[in-house]
Amino acid sequence: MSVIYDRIALIGLGLIAGSMSLAIRRGGLAGEVVGYARSHATRATAREIGLCDRIEDTAAAAVEGADLVVLCVPVGVMGDVAVEIAPNLKPGATVSDVGSVKRAVIDAVAPHLPENVHFVPAHPLAGTEHSGPRSGFATLFDNRWCLIVPQEGADRAAVDRLEALWRGIGAQTDEMEADHHDLVLAVTSHTPHLIAYTMVGVADDLRRVTDSEVIKYSAAGFRDFTRIAASDPTMWRDVFLNNREATLEILGRFTEELFALQRAIRKGDGDHLHAYFTRTRAIRRGIIEAGQDTDAPDFGRARSG
Amino acid sequence: MSVIYDRIALIGLGLIAGSMSLAIRRGGLAGEVVGYARSHATRATAREIGLCDRIEDTAAAAVEGADLVVLCVPVGVMGDVAVEIAPNLKPGATVSDVGSVKRAVIDAVAPHLPENVHFVPAHPLAGTEHSGPRSGFATLFDNRWCLIVPQEGADRAAVDRLEALWRGIGAQTDEMEADHHDLVLAVTSHTPHLIAYTMVGVADDLRRVTDSEVIKYSAAGFRDFTRIAASDPTMWRDVFLNNREATLEILGRFTEELFALQRAIRKGDGDHLHAYFTRTRAIRRGIIEAGQDTDAPDFGRARSG
Repeated sequence: MSVIYDRIALIGLGLIAGSMSLAIRRGGLAGEVVGYARSHATRATAREIGLCDRIEDTAAAAVEGADLVVLCVPVGVMGDVAVEIAPNLKPGATVSDVGSVKRAVIDAVAPHLPENVHFVPAHPLAGTEHSGPRSGFATLFDNRWCLIVPQEGADRAAVDRLEALWRGIGAQTDEMEADHHDLVLAVTSHTPHLIAYTMVGVADDLRRVTDSEVIKYSAAGFRDFTRIAASDPTMWRDVFLNNREATLEILGRFTEELFALQRAIRKGDGDHLHAYFTRTRAIRRGIIEAGQDTDAPDFGRARSG
Repeated sequence: MSVIYDRIALIGLGLIAGSMSLAIRRGGLAGEVVGYARSHATRATAREIGLCDRIEDTAAAAVEGADLVVLCVPVGVMGDVAVEIAPNLKPGATVSDVGSVKRAVIDAVAPHLPENVHFVPAHPLAGTEHSGPRSGFATLFDNRWCLIVPQEGADRAAVDRLEALWRGIGAQTDEMEADHHDLVLAVTSHTPHLIAYTMVGVADDLRRVTDSEVIKYSAAGFRDFTRIAASDPTMWRDVFLNNREATLEILGRFTEELFALQRAIRKGDGDHLHAYFTRTRAIRRGIIEAGQDTDAPDFGRARSG
């Protein structure tokens, strides 16, 4: 592939930025990838493993002369970072982010950016339960979706260029409106994560079932929940605080449905349960047909057998 | 390995029985594996793919002369099958099962068995979201646990022999009391499954988020839920109806915790969320250390990338 941006600056060097850097180099998509992280330890690790072409000690120095600046920090600090880098942004540069929530990030970042830069929010739908500068890998985004959330009156060329980068990184791109994005993600990612965290917390609380037993006998089901519930606490705290309305709406629907199933169990209404469980099978088939997972006959056993 | 039972009869030919048959042959653990399924179509498929050494058209014929009979049918029909096979059981034979619930199965099966056979309930903690005679594979139980639930006054030799079979199949064995088993499984498997079914149902209901979007953008998290929620509806209906008390108890604790997190989101209590999410990370590490999953950096992306 060919160079899409001469210089790309990644602010925050965790799982997403690290994987982006590795994928950008794999594709030869940038002349130079510059990185910055607030933590000295993270910068030291990034230098040690050569995560980027260059690691700077300040965000200002990192964005200097960059044609694309991608904010890869927790949603809750995006605004602070925008304030920090605004004075040093190159005129005509594009600023993007990888936040899991879009409306809150737009409200926090947009007001601080100079008029002569293009702000094109984005959200790659990919992740793992690991975090930190050592957690990245070049194939993280392959065959995954990256949702681009262009603002009103956005420069088409700037949007197309960012989408080209993400496709070069290995992702498929699609455009979506910010509020709709936040609702879709509340359903497909945010609420499922909260539920997984809750279930693991319940297991941890139960005194009658010792931790060792819960761990030892974590058959498929709970084991998958623990994988989800091991995700980065800071990132997820910020997701829930910044996608509050949508998450609470979906949680309300969830408890409503759960109580209906709970009543069916209490009353011994097997038909209700069977009909419900049969319906949920269909959406799974759809996901496999959509190529977002494989039909491999396991719950990750291929990894653990 | 050497033969542990001259003849083993598997009643019900789904994922578990099919995988058992393949693993028993892999280990050379039986002189002959005989199978029976109520459905003609299932028997035909089992014969076509040579799932067992012999497929019989009646449960009575299948258990004839068998040294071990394993009931691999949904928990709700275990009692009926016991009644059906009781007259034809070989004196001194061992009868076992693979039900996900133990107390209800013991109450349904034990009363119908003749005094001259040994009843040793068991539950292999392994499964996938697939079902039917074509879904089995020989490695399903490798490195998994099989819980043995010996009855009071059980014949030690019969129990040891069954445990030897499961170890030969590839599983680790442990013994547990029936009611405790049902509570542990309510935490590690039953309640997580109900929650996953519910979340997938909510997504399916949401009109504002079309199915296509939910499927298309099913990032890790929801995608894992759909895998769980694609499990066999009949098996799971029976699990919830037959492990009612424990499931309802755990569900009560779950909604209590969920409401606390929901309140934290509503009130913007980030500290509560962060502390909770940090705590749940530990149990995940424990599971990896316990060898029940790998630390592979993905949510199954290795399968789907």
